[in-house]
Amino acid sequence: MANLRGDLALRPVGHVSSPLKDRASAPKQGTEGAPDAWLVFEPSYQTALEGLAVGDRIIVLTWLHQASRDVLRTRPRDDPRNPETGVFATRSPDRPNPVGLHPVEILRVTGRRVLVRGLEALDGTPVVDVKPVLKGDTGA
Amino acid sequence: MANLRGDLALRPVGHVSSPLKDRASAPKQGTEGAPDAWLVFEPSYQTALEGLAVGDRIIVLTWLHQASRDVLRTRPRDDPRNPETGVFATRSPDRPNPVGLHPVEILRVTGRRVLVRGLEALDGTPVVDVKPVLKGDTGA
Repeated sequence: MANLRGDLALRPVGHVSSPLKDRASAPKQGTEGAPDAWLVFEPSYQTALEGLAVGDRIIVLTWLHQASRDVLRTRPRDDPRNPETGVFATRSPDRPNPVGLHPVEILRVTGRRVLVRGLEALDGTPVVDVKPVLKGDTGA
Repeated sequence: MANLRGDLALRPVGHVSSPLKDRASAPKQGTEGAPDAWLVFEPSYQTALEGLAVGDRIIVLTWLHQASRDVLRTRPRDDPRNPETGVFATRSPDRPNPVGLHPVEILRVTGRRVLVRGLEALDGTPVVDVKPVLKGDTGA
């Protein structure tokens, strides 16, 4: 199917199943005590998972469905001591296109369910993509 | 504005201005000889850039507008010697949600234009987000 310019609609390919139920209790990053969580994929996308294995480092892309899209400036980490800065210089979920990036390790693959370590996304968050980590991903 | 579940429409916040004009001539990754390129932001999003500076390492999120969204399996790097694998185990642009991740360094900031090093995205590619690189982004 053609990917027409102007048609920028994401299609959820799955969702997060996690004990994290609300934003107030979620850690800001996966490395800050986030729980392990399942990525549950839609049956029609199971083929796209072939080749993913335990121990792989992947980047999960989510749609942060509880974020506000109208915020252009914020205080990093919601800390009032931090000066306001543009959202593109922060990892705040509140931003024009609230796509979350979550670098995680695969702990288990069971059919169309993938268990990952330390995911700070809330239960029910739509998953839109998964990519393997590349060496250059730190921008170094 | 509420970010209603089901409304997963990305809004371009800018576009790539690059000498790369077609997919056949583009390198597969930014570290493979990609040219420097400008990110040109829409005037309404200039505020969101505040705080970005020369030398910062950022991840640019793009919408790979020439990708095919119906591909679920591919041969990595388009190499016929590679076995077919699910697209979530590859960085192929062809995938259900063709969001590109480009880790790059900022070389210059001029108003709402940002010059970055080694970007493999084509001229005219919509930019949907910019995030600072975090230490955990390798999934390590």
